[in-house]
Amino acid sequence: MEDYQRPIVTVDVAVFTLVSGTLHVGLLTRDRDPFSGKLALPGGFVHINEDVDTARTARRVIEEKTGVRVPYLEQLYTFSGLSRDPRGWSVSIAYYVVIPGEILASGNGELQLHPVDKLPPLAFDHNTIVEVAVNRLRAKSTYSSLPAFLLPETFTLPELQKVYEQVLGTKIDRWKFRRRFEDLDIIELAEGTRTARAGAGRPGQLFRLRSQVLSELKETI
Amino acid sequence: MEDYQRPIVTVDVAVFTLVSGTLHVGLLTRDRDPFSGKLALPGGFVHINEDVDTARTARRVIEEKTGVRVPYLEQLYTFSGLSRDPRGWSVSIAYYVVIPGEILASGNGELQLHPVDKLPPLAFDHNTIVEVAVNRLRAKSTYSSLPAFLLPETFTLPELQKVYEQVLGTKIDRWKFRRRFEDLDIIELAEGTRTARAGAGRPGQLFRLRSQVLSELKETI
Repeated sequence: MEDYQRPIVTVDVAVFTLVSGTLHVGLLTRDRDPFSGKLALPGGFVHINEDVDTARTARRVIEEKTGVRVPYLEQLYTFSGLSRDPRGWSVSIAYYVVIPGEILASGNGELQLHPVDKLPPLAFDHNTIVEVAVNRLRAKSTYSSLPAFLLPETFTLPELQKVYEQVLGTKIDRWKFRRRFEDLDIIELAEGTRTARAGAGRPGQLFRLRSQVLSELKETI
Repeated sequence: MEDYQRPIVTVDVAVFTLVSGTLHVGLLTRDRDPFSGKLALPGGFVHINEDVDTARTARRVIEEKTGVRVPYLEQLYTFSGLSRDPRGWSVSIAYYVVIPGEILASGNGELQLHPVDKLPPLAFDHNTIVEVAVNRLRAKSTYSSLPAFLLPETFTLPELQKVYEQVLGTKIDRWKFRRRFEDLDIIELAEGTRTARAGAGRPGQLFRLRSQVLSELKETI
């Protein structure tokens, strides 16, 4: 074996969801040192006797800490160095997931949801991790079905547009948005209609993501 | 400290360059087990007493093994698990760099350059790492100055277009290409002209990357 001392290896996960149409990230109050009492992303050590890889570590951590099964997980970036963890030289392989609010609500309710634009100082370098994750989410959203994973199983086109506008942090022209979705070919008609609110005009046709899109996004590099 | 056994942590680097206009990756023959005698990406263990972070590990490994200073380094992806290294559960934080052939040639000459589309079976999961790196390089090339880093300091527009076509693996319309470069605003006029070959018509104006572009690409997340 090598002669070098091994770094600490952890996994941290940014869990994104929408609360009242605003992008939020899930945090936990740490109950032990370092940073006891501070908010942090859910995370944990790699268990080499249990986890087949770090994606499995990330799924295990989320399931243990939220009580929710993660449909879609993506590796974000690996943060490392001497100074990010007072316990010593450490590597954090960061992941992010996007989960509809109603699925998160079906869990154990321990995750505290904070708007991504107004975070308090977090433990470790977790403010940086969230910032990098939000940037990645926004960059990926312009050309993928990723934001649609924040919606319930069926949705109207105005609901879909609102999610993209929220994640991208910008208004989108209604007709440009619809043309782009025709090009992407990732949604299909679902049964039924939904009305935004009482007296809001004619009800909107419901759509859903194509099943092919769902399975392709489950595992991506 | 935690109760869990720590994984092996290494860094591997895909070094890309052009040889006769074709995308190549740099490999070394391993001189020890595991996989002694097999070709592998240059890589090594994180030295926690020496490296400030894994980007520094990657730079150190490249400089030690090639004798070349790396101008631009980007994190690719972190590969992990029980089965990728016979020594045990391991994490490899993979990086990639693009280097002009003449800079690589100024080094110690130990790196063996192989065309990315015709690789032999490599040690560990390094065929997968190269595949992911080539895909990333191609995806990033459509909207960035990345391929231009494969060129010498000054270049003509036809030379620039050839590099993009090679990296992307596709022909690009000459006028579309020039329009895109005007939009990107990342190159500027350099002094002088160059003729492609004797009798090849009028000489092409030389360009170079803007200095701002060079510094921005040095450290990216």
